[in-house]
Amino acid sequence: MLAACKRVRNPLTAKVPSLFFCSVGRQSDRRSLATEAANQSTDHVIFSGIQPTGVPHLGNYLGALQQWVKLQESSSTATRLLYSIVDLHAITIPQDPRLLKQWKREGIATLLAIGLDPERSILFYQSSVPAHSELMWILSTTASMGYLSRMTQWKSKLSLPEDASPLEESSKSKLKLGLFSYPVLQAADILVHRATHVPVGEDQSQHLEFSRECVTNFNHAYGPRLVSPKTILSPAKRVMSLQEPHLKMSKSHSDPRSRILITDSAKEIHQKLKTALTDSINSVSYDPDNRPAVSNLLQLLSHFDAQGRSPEELGKVHANLGLGAFKKIVADTISDHLDPIRKRWHEVMQEGNGAYVDHVERIGAKKARDSADATMAIVREAVGL
Amino acid sequence: MLAACKRVRNPLTAKVPSLFFCSVGRQSDRRSLATEAANQSTDHVIFSGIQPTGVPHLGNYLGALQQWVKLQESSSTATRLLYSIVDLHAITIPQDPRLLKQWKREGIATLLAIGLDPERSILFYQSSVPAHSELMWILSTTASMGYLSRMTQWKSKLSLPEDASPLEESSKSKLKLGLFSYPVLQAADILVHRATHVPVGEDQSQHLEFSRECVTNFNHAYGPRLVSPKTILSPAKRVMSLQEPHLKMSKSHSDPRSRILITDSAKEIHQKLKTALTDSINSVSYDPDNRPAVSNLLQLLSHFDAQGRSPEELGKVHANLGLGAFKKIVADTISDHLDPIRKRWHEVMQEGNGAYVDHVERIGAKKARDSADATMAIVREAVGL
Repeated sequence: MLAACKRVRNPLTAKVPSLFFCSVGRQSDRRSLATEAANQSTDHVIFSGIQPTGVPHLGNYLGALQQWVKLQESSSTATRLLYSIVDLHAITIPQDPRLLKQWKREGIATLLAIGLDPERSILFYQSSVPAHSELMWILSTTASMGYLSRMTQWKSKLSLPEDASPLEESSKSKLKLGLFSYPVLQAADILVHRATHVPVGEDQSQHLEFSRECVTNFNHAYGPRLVSPKTILSPAKRVMSLQEPHLKMSKSHSDPRSRILITDSAKEIHQKLKTALTDSINSVSYDPDNRPAVSNLLQLLSHFDAQGRSPEELGKVHANLGLGAFKKIVADTISDHLDPIRKRWHEVMQEGNGAYVDHVERIGAKKARDSADATMAIVREAVGL
Repeated sequence: MLAACKRVRNPLTAKVPSLFFCSVGRQSDRRSLATEAANQSTDHVIFSGIQPTGVPHLGNYLGALQQWVKLQESSSTATRLLYSIVDLHAITIPQDPRLLKQWKREGIATLLAIGLDPERSILFYQSSVPAHSELMWILSTTASMGYLSRMTQWKSKLSLPEDASPLEESSKSKLKLGLFSYPVLQAADILVHRATHVPVGEDQSQHLEFSRECVTNFNHAYGPRLVSPKTILSPAKRVMSLQEPHLKMSKSHSDPRSRILITDSAKEIHQKLKTALTDSINSVSYDPDNRPAVSNLLQLLSHFDAQGRSPEELGKVHANLGLGAFKKIVADTISDHLDPIRKRWHEVMQEGNGAYVDHVERIGAKKARDSADATMAIVREAVGL
């Protein structure tokens, strides 16, 4: 764990996606960190969150969600796991209230479908636990405006340059306080549950660093009450667009054929693969520089390969196939993997017409409130509230 | 009410004190506004708050607290009254946790001592109602950074010039997010209870204007859900320092003889008056330009005069007295007025060794949570949470 933690102590300036976690990281960290983090102590608390922005695509799944399930499976029973649908973060950019409500429910269904066990992992909406907002305010009283203005997320969300300042003309007209202070709410999400480990993508490690800064500020003012969270860097899984392989697979791309959702049917997956961009050479080889589209498909196949083979190895295995046949194999492999997830997702959503999902969330929210209230009692006492 | 509301719609740029309300305003507004506001409708909600910063002095009492009692007495039974000890605001500047806790309790004792009836007015700590922080976050997602940076309170608290920007070097090192976003929490305090009328001093009318801006922003995004609060300008009562009559009476002045606390004993009041600055003319006359110290004492006397005589009139009545005898009359008058308040304050604080105060707050907090939860249900539904 130490090496990983040291590495992420340098704030990074990469652009960050709309997810709490992210989907970029280093391949080499894949298993060791998660297992080590989850097993080394008996009182670990793992927290992470995902925004309710619709059904996740393969980038979200491979980059983060799959890791959450692995942490659930590998952690000792003494480890508490909390996974939140962070709806209060979602509203930092305009949302359609009706859609947001639907996406929240689909968010819980997704967590259940990928294999999170509500008896083992606490699944809840962020807005079901008032203590997230309460601690956010308390942390904000010791959070520096200067530090926040150097964070990159509000800039990338507003498509501003990285050196933009919150109060220059181009920012001022668009920037809302919520988007600017997002990292403080994120810190509160983590600290209110006394999380010891937070699985995130590398581009969120700047925010984790800020959470530790919040701990330092608070503990300096009020004594050692808050726990400094460690980063679990999510495994590096490059998942690129099926239409433009130089871009990351993205929810916001205008062409839905550019991404595979975890609830896509076999037919949809086959169609998306069939129309996926390739090149004019009708054979398979792993060559990211010269054949980015085909290499992307090999990477995708590698992520789902039961034998854990690398894209290079798979390129050799399938070297003699034509592109049509190769795409079919990729589609079959992905579809086979997603099949139980898709089925479970629909099952869960239909159960009681959403009542089961609501029930799971209600139970999770109760547990999460208990978890947060314990911290808030300590915080209130320390602050004199 | 209309005239008053129109007048305060222009944001003012005066420096603001550490209180939620304030003690400066216009004498002429004294009675009419309060009575009119409280009587004209059956479903009024009046909200105001005071920071827990120790026992109030006469400036606080005459400028705001006395007005709260008058509103309680003059409002119809259908009017809901909520008065809060705003502890979450207090922590925007560093506090001693032990003292803060004590001052909170003394805050409730003060409200009871001045005549607020816990059966009639809801008395509670801001931090007892999580919805204040929850709505604060929601409002922050539509609150403009540009608008907030133009507010004056954070500048005056950090002793920065009025044209300071939050991110210039002199501000950045000191400014915390909590102090900067203070007006949004204040807006949430008001809006979460659907307050229709908020008694404040003139120097807080900028914040009320911002609260209305928050309503406009929210209602624009989510439909007409929040109620725009009207300002009840607190009566103008200039209460100046007993030692430096060109300065307002202030809690933070180094010389405790410069202020009279509402719990001061008759002996303390007489001593403070005895050492109050005057001038070398041993007679009484109202002449603010040439005799500011004596004129200040006449103003003070006027505030407590049972017949409601002006300082000018009282100057004539006491024209033939020497300063020593005149100061004794002022001390007696103040002391007579404060006597039942002081007695009640000690009685209330001693009852059950603080248990009674805690009990009153617990009951008030429950009612305030119910009041806030009703609004939050509407807000959550509108936002899609």
